Amino acid sequence: MPTNERTYYDAEELWAFVRRALVALDVRDDDAALVAEILGASDMRGIESHGVARLERFYVDRIRDGFIDPRARETTTRETATSLAVDANNALGHPVGDRVMRRTIAKAAEAGCAIATVGRSNHYGIAGYYAMLALEHDMIGISSTNAGRLAAPTGGRDLMLGTNPFAYAIPAADGDAFVLDMATTTVALGKLEIAERLGKPLQPGWAIDASGAMTLDPRAGMLGALLPLGGYGTENGGHKGFGLGLLADIVCGVLGSGVMVPDMPPSTHVLDPGITSHFFAAIRIDAFRDVAAFKTDLSTLLNEMRSSTPAPGYERVYVAGDPERSRERAHRETGIGLDPVVVASLERVSEKTGVAPPRSRAERA
Amino acid sequence: MPTNERTYYDAEELWAFVRRALVALDVRDDDAALVAEILGASDMRGIESHGVARLERFYVDRIRDGFIDPRARETTTRETATSLAVDANNALGHPVGDRVMRRTIAKAAEAGCAIATVGRSNHYGIAGYYAMLALEHDMIGISSTNAGRLAAPTGGRDLMLGTNPFAYAIPAADGDAFVLDMATTTVALGKLEIAERLGKPLQPGWAIDASGAMTLDPRAGMLGALLPLGGYGTENGGHKGFGLGLLADIVCGVLGSGVMVPDMPPSTHVLDPGITSHFFAAIRIDAFRDVAAFKTDLSTLLNEMRSSTPAPGYERVYVAGDPERSRERAHRETGIGLDPVVVASLERVSEKTGVAPPRSRAERA
Repeated sequence: MPTNERTYYDAEELWAFVRRALVALDVRDDDAALVAEILGASDMRGIESHGVARLERFYVDRIRDGFIDPRARETTTRETATSLAVDANNALGHPVGDRVMRRTIAKAAEAGCAIATVGRSNHYGIAGYYAMLALEHDMIGISSTNAGRLAAPTGGRDLMLGTNPFAYAIPAADGDAFVLDMATTTVALGKLEIAERLGKPLQPGWAIDASGAMTLDPRAGMLGALLPLGGYGTENGGHKGFGLGLLADIVCGVLGSGVMVPDMPPSTHVLDPGITSHFFAAIRIDAFRDVAAFKTDLSTLLNEMRSSTPAPGYERVYVAGDPERSRERAHRETGIGLDPVVVASLERVSEKTGVAPPRSRAERA
Repeated sequence: MPTNERTYYDAEELWAFVRRALVALDVRDDDAALVAEILGASDMRGIESHGVARLERFYVDRIRDGFIDPRARETTTRETATSLAVDANNALGHPVGDRVMRRTIAKAAEAGCAIATVGRSNHYGIAGYYAMLALEHDMIGISSTNAGRLAAPTGGRDLMLGTNPFAYAIPAADGDAFVLDMATTTVALGKLEIAERLGKPLQPGWAIDASGAMTLDPRAGMLGALLPLGGYGTENGGHKGFGLGLLADIVCGVLGSGVMVPDMPPSTHVLDPGITSHFFAAIRIDAFRDVAAFKTDLSTLLNEMRSSTPAPGYERVYVAGDPERSRERAHRETGIGLDPVVVASLERVSEKTGVAPPRSRAERA
């Protein structure tokens, strides 16, 4: 595997491997299937950072080292017709998130809207997956999660926030949809790692060094902190990104009775158990207007954006969810391509679990 | 009035003037009192762009020219225990917004959470005012509005979005609160106007010129478009700000059965009636956990942020709502200081309505 070329896998082959590997670690089969499906959804949508690339370090190792409880199931601590407060009991984040979002949708189907919080959970993958579960129910889906500390507040230099994403999914006509899934930092840590690997400088507004000064040096940024969306200081709205990141910590960590700063560890201490909290909401569109008319109008709005005049150097305007949708279409054709480093990681998972590694398209041909 | 010095007014004096001026234009007294209170709240919080500075052009002139209906009242088009769809019938945005947010809070008090949309309304001032109405009810308050087109989508150059703010208000202990009220553009148009007046260049990421290229020239930016939070292109997350701006257009304009692109006019056509739509939500904190514990934990979180290490050149870290709160405290002492251009505008309002102008602190002394 000494080249940089990608190896292509059928999605089903990868998912079956994830499922078997987790079952070998004492995860219940239905929970393992959900983790596989959600990591798979991430790879299919081209969000590789949250797909099978994370299987070893985020899930397999944490279970093996006793930090995530593979048998735990969530318990409900408070419940009304429109709300659900859940303690994940340090279970895997994906199956808890999937079940809680589906319960939120079921509540919203009865009540019009519903909201759920989950405390003491673990990394749940892409926020967008959970929000998108609402689409087929003609609802607006919302999800957020907090995460280990990687970012500094505006005007500060300490690690005080995770990348704390928000996701919103809203159905339009003919399967079209608005799907916004965004970290509240300018960029994720992965962008700094890529810049370092390529020997390229960072963009201004991505990171500060350990002294709190803006830096273009990837290494210094990794030893410092990420900046909130809007960048350094308030000049370009960094306080807005900081506000959104803090909002995620409030509706997830505080409302969810979970771990919050100062007890939330820096994300370098990835092994702390149950530090993650989530937020879910579902809203029935027909509580406000006719669903078909809403979807048609939303498609009109999205298409107006898409067909507006591109700026110089741009081919067209994309709305939130468009790039992921076109990558998903492409991956259905090509299979999922994994970098050598990810292939090697899956081979280590195979060794650690005793489960045969996934076979590439070439091997199966 | 040939100096640049500010004239200071007691808040009550200004509000009484606003109320009388609107009543003289056939606005009902209770509606006029709400407009006065909400413009006043904006000035008190130091958001001068949305205070009495807008009285003449946004409200008085639009009523006089027949674009806002001063006698109109909102009607409810759809209602459930958790939702409210309202048609503002081209009434003033402030009183409609105030009443609808209070109805949303009352519904949430019964149901746990509630959401409202308002279509065919007019400019409602600061989004934060409505969100903050939830605070004393131990609820999370949310509000958003769309607005005339001033901003371009990421990768585009046409005016396709307003500054489309979101506001979130969440109560903490002892009167403390998290209050985020943010436009989804990097900056508001006012920042370009100030730069032009001072002969200063714009910051990169604020605006594009009419060709769609990034510009540092204030005049060119005003003839072009504002950029979404995150700035030009996707490198610094401009697509995230664009996504948030579009989200506001969807939950306000589309969900609210209001006016949306392509029918939403550019904001230069400020006189189009009933083009604005709003969104409101209220969430009971005790649906998820004990309110007192929540507020204590939120105060801890906010104070952890505030007491974290400042970056070089910064005195301290502020969380969302802190700057407005300290300005409000200062204004209680000093009164509200108005620029000569705003004083002149209020004098024109006096002439247009036949209502005696407000008397400054100096005049009343």
